Amino acid sequence: MSREDIDKLADQRLYDIAENWYKQMAGAKIPSISLPTRTKHNIEYDESSEVWKYGEKETMRIANSSKSALHLLKMAYVVGFLKNQIAESRSSTLREMYYISEGWKKAKFGAQDESNHLVEDLEIITELSREAFHLRPEEDGASVYGPLRIREKTRRGERVMHCQEDIGEAGYPIPNNVDNLEFIDHDAKFVIAMETGGMYARLMENGFDEEHDAILVHLKGQPARSTRRVLRRLNQELGLPVVIFTDGDPWSYRIFASVAYGSIKAAHMSEILATPGAQFIGVQPSDISNYNLPSDKLTEGDIAALKAELSDPRFDTEYWRHEINLQLKLGLKSEQQAFASRGLDFVTKEYLPARLSEMGVI
Amino acid sequence: MSREDIDKLADQRLYDIAENWYKQMAGAKIPSISLPTRTKHNIEYDESSEVWKYGEKETMRIANSSKSALHLLKMAYVVGFLKNQIAESRSSTLREMYYISEGWKKAKFGAQDESNHLVEDLEIITELSREAFHLRPEEDGASVYGPLRIREKTRRGERVMHCQEDIGEAGYPIPNNVDNLEFIDHDAKFVIAMETGGMYARLMENGFDEEHDAILVHLKGQPARSTRRVLRRLNQELGLPVVIFTDGDPWSYRIFASVAYGSIKAAHMSEILATPGAQFIGVQPSDISNYNLPSDKLTEGDIAALKAELSDPRFDTEYWRHEINLQLKLGLKSEQQAFASRGLDFVTKEYLPARLSEMGVI
Repeated sequence: MSREDIDKLADQRLYDIAENWYKQMAGAKIPSISLPTRTKHNIEYDESSEVWKYGEKETMRIANSSKSALHLLKMAYVVGFLKNQIAESRSSTLREMYYISEGWKKAKFGAQDESNHLVEDLEIITELSREAFHLRPEEDGASVYGPLRIREKTRRGERVMHCQEDIGEAGYPIPNNVDNLEFIDHDAKFVIAMETGGMYARLMENGFDEEHDAILVHLKGQPARSTRRVLRRLNQELGLPVVIFTDGDPWSYRIFASVAYGSIKAAHMSEILATPGAQFIGVQPSDISNYNLPSDKLTEGDIAALKAELSDPRFDTEYWRHEINLQLKLGLKSEQQAFASRGLDFVTKEYLPARLSEMGVI
Repeated sequence: MSREDIDKLADQRLYDIAENWYKQMAGAKIPSISLPTRTKHNIEYDESSEVWKYGEKETMRIANSSKSALHLLKMAYVVGFLKNQIAESRSSTLREMYYISEGWKKAKFGAQDESNHLVEDLEIITELSREAFHLRPEEDGASVYGPLRIREKTRRGERVMHCQEDIGEAGYPIPNNVDNLEFIDHDAKFVIAMETGGMYARLMENGFDEEHDAILVHLKGQPARSTRRVLRRLNQELGLPVVIFTDGDPWSYRIFASVAYGSIKAAHMSEILATPGAQFIGVQPSDISNYNLPSDKLTEGDIAALKAELSDPRFDTEYWRHEINLQLKLGLKSEQQAFASRGLDFVTKEYLPARLSEMGVI
């Protein structure tokens, strides 16, 4: 969908909310809004789309108490603010919107949490993401380097960039709103997304992208929304396999899971944010023993996190049960840069090619 | 200095260390190395260059005990590794070097701290930065957007980019090693460096860079080494004033101080990393009351940090004493995005122009 079409749709969906209230009042009904109950107990793992989703339970907010009326009033102000923002082709951060509410008298937000939560409600009601309402995330997107030509619509005009030939070594930084991004053409066979900047720079320096026709993505730890959206689009639109390369510890497995399956917190956005086809390449617990990697002992927190993953449906596969149980037995974890103990080329010449061919990617 | 000249110099300085040991041994002396004592008590604020520096106290490491001999052995391995890395035109992270030491038998590092410390020692001895030895920082550089044309030497050839016309909205990401960067030309009158991504995007969206011929730099919180080096070079090479725009709390004032004066931790690199001419634009405590900004109460931690700043020589000016004492009296702090309470244009149309003209920048 073009940016203009998204704007039109977002404007319409916001209008629908207000129109619904208007009709309720015109029909002598108390205005209300209903949306899925947002508790852990109402989140289900959807087998068919392989992502987390809200269940069937609904909560109704009806303006028959001053508390609920105030909640709807705040939502009305936000709807008005966002509609106006789209009309004026402007954008703002959640933080700015929170401060702007200072001028909304009774509808002023008490805390940032409250306005964040309300925006998530709007995402659920409209089935659109906050970026469609021109709300910018604060968090930074990741970088991309590889045989991919993109077009970005910026406020200063369109920019066409090849992500090897036209950019610096730090890569092409993903903009806040990836709806402004278009993939023009590419020579890539797959996408490899990495947790650390050190590993991203290692693959770039070793020419891994050229040798294997790979698009390198630097996740920068737990990936931002825009990064996850780009990974999904590279996978869905271009049909490229996506592999995730992280440290070998339970926190990093969660990075993989949030890319592949989405998170509980953003369950309503899983279908935009998740890449169910993403595969985990390593560091696997079995690599620690097979390659005799330098390692650290698991802490008590690590062990608890691994055990929690054993009961997490996202890790409920034979592969993960085997690897997690192996790691608990070994009592060890390793970082991705630990492959450097076998030389700076080992990871790109030996480890990754072996794993990629094992996984059927190359 | 060109990249080739830096390589040559770094190679020579590393060679000098080894040659010195060789001469000591040839002259029947026990090999040793001396360098400034690296404790808080040996750090002085240098009035003339306005940065922190090590004092006169020196510590001698002499290989007359197995502990000191082992220390010199480790340094010898690192010198050899770095010399080789320069010769092969490769680079690595501190983390990778730590893992590579796995193969150095007795000279293997016990912990990352140890190898980091040794690299800092080498920086002090050679008076060169770790980047000159092709050691990449893990931390990411910031982004630049504005009327500036740069040339970056990358491993895939030279790239010339105008930081408005040739890049996307997320800006030009500063590479790890700014020695590879050259400023070709510019139409800028000053540089404004911001703490948050939200404010960077606000100035970009509002066209502040075009209206005021400003180079926007997104610091991303506490700025990385490469960011501080770029700010210094924009100031020194292009003669551009640098102003720093952060939240109005003691932690953000430290961001300003680390840009302007350097940090105690990297005192030996202050002359490469610091921009003594950088000025603080806000959020000032007096802005909180003058503009009636939305604010939060100071926490106990905030109050302690403000009091510590009152005895920090970097804040020992009439301006800072006044502002810090005012903040302690107000008991409040404000974020830079709090200006949004007066509308999304207030910061770029009113606040910043007023402050910049007050400061004599525009």
